[in-house]
Amino acid sequence: MFLRIDHVGIACNDLEEKIAFYESTFGLTVVSREVNEEQGVREAMLHVADGDGGASYVQLLEPLHPDTAVGKFLARRGEGVHHIGYGVADVAKAMEEIAGQGVRLVDERPRHGSMGAAIAFLHPKDTGGVLTELVQAPRDNGH
Amino acid sequence: MFLRIDHVGIACNDLEEKIAFYESTFGLTVVSREVNEEQGVREAMLHVADGDGGASYVQLLEPLHPDTAVGKFLARRGEGVHHIGYGVADVAKAMEEIAGQGVRLVDERPRHGSMGAAIAFLHPKDTGGVLTELVQAPRDNGH
Repeated sequence: MFLRIDHVGIACNDLEEKIAFYESTFGLTVVSREVNEEQGVREAMLHVADGDGGASYVQLLEPLHPDTAVGKFLARRGEGVHHIGYGVADVAKAMEEIAGQGVRLVDERPRHGSMGAAIAFLHPKDTGGVLTELVQAPRDNGH
Repeated sequence: MFLRIDHVGIACNDLEEKIAFYESTFGLTVVSREVNEEQGVREAMLHVADGDGGASYVQLLEPLHPDTAVGKFLARRGEGVHHIGYGVADVAKAMEEIAGQGVRLVDERPRHGSMGAAIAFLHPKDTGGVLTELVQAPRDNGH
């Protein structure tokens, strides 16, 4: 079902500072910046690698307000890994298969993710404490 | 510097239960099981994808004892993402470059990781709360 580790989603207090850190320390390159009002985040995607199943990224997330999912995460646990996104070919089909295994979905239907992807989150209580995201990349961005 | 997201390291209370979950829910396959006494873990590597820079895995970690790094992590935060491993071509060279950027290393020299890799951890206080591992795969395992 999984085609790739699409991204590691990392919550941070200062997006620009963390971008500069990942660029200078690890040599990663920003390929996209977005504000996702629905998810309450300002974010950047930094390219790590290309693979048979698509590309892999580090996703840096800064909350737009303290009263957002990422804002509450930062208040509770501090900066760190917020979620893991895995690439799938068909997010709706994957959601159906996973729900059929008894795993609760955070999203009832796919929603908009980074760089035009269709995404859905699985409930971390049913996935061993790992907030897990399914990512179907758009067909025209090289995935 | 980074060739791939080598693995997502996930701490769990029951390795066999979590392997069964990742196999049945997400269709991943175990490619290696090891006990690493030095790190105090029983672990499994589940293959996710192959890429230009090597393969990507989910690494499931169960502590051998409560008084280990992963055991303490579980007691403090519960099950979830413990660290992120990135592939590098030369772990010793990467350590030198990263230390030169002012990031503290947990390991003074490379040590043994999963599946014959040479690894080193960076200090999470200097990497935005993300315990970050450098992974140099052995030359003969298809990486």
